[in-house]
Amino acid sequence: MTELTKRRSRRRAGGREARAAVRTSNVASQAIWPGISGGRYKPLSDADMSRIHEAALGILERTGVGDPTQEVLDLVLPKGAVVNEHGRLCFPRALMEDLLARAASEFYVHARGSRAGKDDMHCTKDKVYYANSGTAVTTFDAETRSYRPSTLKDIYDFTRLVDRLDNIHMTGDTVLATDVPQDYEHDMSMLYAILAGSEKPSCLTFRTREHIQDAIHLFDLASGGEGKFLEKPSVIFGGCPIVSPLRFGRENLEILIDTAKMGLVCDLAVPPQAGATSPAPLAGTLAQAVAETLSCVAIANLINPGTPVVFAAWPFITDLRTGSFTGGSGEQALISAAAIQMGNFYNLPTSVGCGMTDSKIPDAQYGLEKALTFALAAHAGANRLCEFGGMLGSLMGCSFESMVIDNEAAGMISRTLRGIEVSDDTLSVDVIHECAIDPGHFLGNAQTLQYMETEYVYPSLLDRELTDTWEKAGRQDMFERSRSVVDDILSNHYPNYFGSKADEEVRSRFPIKLPREVMRAG
Amino acid sequence: MTELTKRRSRRRAGGREARAAVRTSNVASQAIWPGISGGRYKPLSDADMSRIHEAALGILERTGVGDPTQEVLDLVLPKGAVVNEHGRLCFPRALMEDLLARAASEFYVHARGSRAGKDDMHCTKDKVYYANSGTAVTTFDAETRSYRPSTLKDIYDFTRLVDRLDNIHMTGDTVLATDVPQDYEHDMSMLYAILAGSEKPSCLTFRTREHIQDAIHLFDLASGGEGKFLEKPSVIFGGCPIVSPLRFGRENLEILIDTAKMGLVCDLAVPPQAGATSPAPLAGTLAQAVAETLSCVAIANLINPGTPVVFAAWPFITDLRTGSFTGGSGEQALISAAAIQMGNFYNLPTSVGCGMTDSKIPDAQYGLEKALTFALAAHAGANRLCEFGGMLGSLMGCSFESMVIDNEAAGMISRTLRGIEVSDDTLSVDVIHECAIDPGHFLGNAQTLQYMETEYVYPSLLDRELTDTWEKAGRQDMFERSRSVVDDILSNHYPNYFGSKADEEVRSRFPIKLPREVMRAG
Repeated sequence: MTELTKRRSRRRAGGREARAAVRTSNVASQAIWPGISGGRYKPLSDADMSRIHEAALGILERTGVGDPTQEVLDLVLPKGAVVNEHGRLCFPRALMEDLLARAASEFYVHARGSRAGKDDMHCTKDKVYYANSGTAVTTFDAETRSYRPSTLKDIYDFTRLVDRLDNIHMTGDTVLATDVPQDYEHDMSMLYAILAGSEKPSCLTFRTREHIQDAIHLFDLASGGEGKFLEKPSVIFGGCPIVSPLRFGRENLEILIDTAKMGLVCDLAVPPQAGATSPAPLAGTLAQAVAETLSCVAIANLINPGTPVVFAAWPFITDLRTGSFTGGSGEQALISAAAIQMGNFYNLPTSVGCGMTDSKIPDAQYGLEKALTFALAAHAGANRLCEFGGMLGSLMGCSFESMVIDNEAAGMISRTLRGIEVSDDTLSVDVIHECAIDPGHFLGNAQTLQYMETEYVYPSLLDRELTDTWEKAGRQDMFERSRSVVDDILSNHYPNYFGSKADEEVRSRFPIKLPREVMRAG
Repeated sequence: MTELTKRRSRRRAGGREARAAVRTSNVASQAIWPGISGGRYKPLSDADMSRIHEAALGILERTGVGDPTQEVLDLVLPKGAVVNEHGRLCFPRALMEDLLARAASEFYVHARGSRAGKDDMHCTKDKVYYANSGTAVTTFDAETRSYRPSTLKDIYDFTRLVDRLDNIHMTGDTVLATDVPQDYEHDMSMLYAILAGSEKPSCLTFRTREHIQDAIHLFDLASGGEGKFLEKPSVIFGGCPIVSPLRFGRENLEILIDTAKMGLVCDLAVPPQAGATSPAPLAGTLAQAVAETLSCVAIANLINPGTPVVFAAWPFITDLRTGSFTGGSGEQALISAAAIQMGNFYNLPTSVGCGMTDSKIPDAQYGLEKALTFALAAHAGANRLCEFGGMLGSLMGCSFESMVIDNEAAGMISRTLRGIEVSDDTLSVDVIHECAIDPGHFLGNAQTLQYMETEYVYPSLLDRELTDTWEKAGRQDMFERSRSVVDDILSNHYPNYFGSKADEEVRSRFPIKLPREVMRAG
């Protein structure tokens, strides 16, 4: 047995009681916090970024974006955009350079109620947050290991679950309510379920622009009264105004136009798929994604100069053996990180699709794909890692158990983002000198007690027991362990953050399809 | 349903047959290769590295390393090292600066037989390889989900398995042969099992210096005859000459001395454990790890100036709630990457312990911890990611199934390391222009066919099917899928790279405890 083996098989007891006294469970970690800065991983060189930028401007000037609506043309042609011989909307280079120089570099998304202020998100270059989103059509059933159509109750349940998960900072509509087929009823009920379930900031998608005004009434009721929402917006509006390659999708373009006019933030989520709706070489997909994203940034800024907008280039990967989308590959992790680097190059707030594992169950593949895509995007300095919690099956499903697991992953990633503080105190040269000479270990040292809470994240779901202990305790894997956390939260935490008065008003004014019975225990 | 959801739920068929014709399975990926350069992730600033360097030199000058043997004192005191008032071996700052300036920045570890040349490893700054090692005491049994004492047959089986796994570049003694208790019989039988099982380069540990000369005879027989091994060494000698904090361990120090004299490469594997055998602040553990590692680099270079040696600072993490070693945390990923950055700061070939998950089974925790520690070390530019394949249970066990899974992980990591090539061709501006205007997709484009093999890694174990297909196929997780790969290789691949003549000679000269019967099918 080597020295290494000998030492790792032995537990050290020195100072254990003192450490146990310091350590209390079920408190938010002191070692991490929301919005830690990333940016220490740079997949692209400065020269690469300049070339991608030049290629994107060339595409916007020559190829442009197809299927512009008359409405958008009326808004942007007078400001310097042009239409080319193919009827496509083009942006001259000088116009783009000018718009980028004046685009907003930051904005806030506010938390509500008792979270107001302390859980606000500061969206700007490099500050990293984990955000739920997805609009998957199925929910994973852990008991049967199968996917069933997702429901409005699922939206409420996912939201109240994430309300108790400290490391996921933003709620979102991770699934569609397939049991509410009518568009208006769906969107109002979805908003209700999410606002009732958590006061964290949200990223939400709408089916049509017609719902925005009523949504704002509903947001006002959640925020304390008329006009309150626009004072401190608590929502980013998700959507994909682009249908790759380089065409507009009408519904989301209209939402972009309306939110830009109101100064609300639109998450563009531009997803060209390499080898299918964009070039097979990753550089080409990146150039196209940047061009597509910048076209939306330009439209928002032409409509309302300086309005905040998210650089949401979300390049996707195709498995070219089958032509199908794959969200968990090394290629995906790499190109997402590079897209983030481009957004930071423009000094714009960013978001990217992350954790889009192709696995159907929280297994080793799930962990490998999630951690790789999370880690590279976060270290590239993504402002928001979207599609974060619970997503699996190439974005086709969402899982309660996975969301709990991803919350643990977020804690690990955040600790790596924080990095290593180097100071005279942390370098510990004198402590090393003393402990090396006598007693030959650091467990009972005052410095160890001092740093144990602030230097380390203590996970609740990651197994660190001895193999014997694990075997005797029933050989559970992380998926099994996550089920009891889900059960514990979902059987105890039934929030309704509207409060009874506003809830009455919401239910009287809007067709809320979430029965009151599902919002309480039993 | 959003545009994103609509698009991802649809499979595209354009050009599928052409792509199927290009794609052939069971070939090494053209998109990755051994030794891709890392180094794009820099957890430490230049100023941080200078401060850590200064702290380490201060520790070496003042505190020094305890328990030096008379032999090492006789070798290094005449060359400028000194003993302090505590009887500890110290290295004056000027001496260290001088030794570091002249230390070897590269070496080769050679493959044998039909792999010679093409599978040699070039060990130098930033070039990334994945290397097995571990000396775990148990082997994971997938059928019973339990750990049993590891055996000599396991060593042969792990080696012939990795012989067929393209992305793991170096074999090693991942487990101990607990069924061969006598030291000499153990080491000779272990060497035999590994050299018989693969011609890839190896990293091997010995129990005592007395075994090295006989080992070299055995290596010669594996390499084609007397003197062949020293011409093209195919082995790195693993071990931990340091017992943290800052003491020598006699057995491995003796191996360092002997290998240095012969110009063979020693992997130092210095594992201070934060909060237990080194300070709780990560910066302090890093400073101590650097000091401890540099002390060994100094000794090797004082004995044999310019002899190649590995900067193997392997800082470990303690869960301070229990005092036990934990190998899979965010803190572990971060400090390992920082240790690598320090090795690259010194322009020395590096290695680091990686993938030391605390999980007992290949589950979501396994994947998260492996991918995070792999990814950050590789992107920090680790030359060798050690303890790579199959290790689990905080290094207490090794698993065949995990080794197959880690091979897939290595492919993903390598693809991210390779990065994005940016050129006029890959930027694809003209292809984008043509495809955007007509037909609106890229699947049948000649460029897509041209790049599909060279741009993408196609995994064999990562599930990318539709959820329906996955359910109908039996809802397998990655662990279950990996079992059939293991079965397939282990029931078919029974190499003995000694060949029958050398094998006779080996078995007549050394006490080889591996029966011939286990080296063939049936």
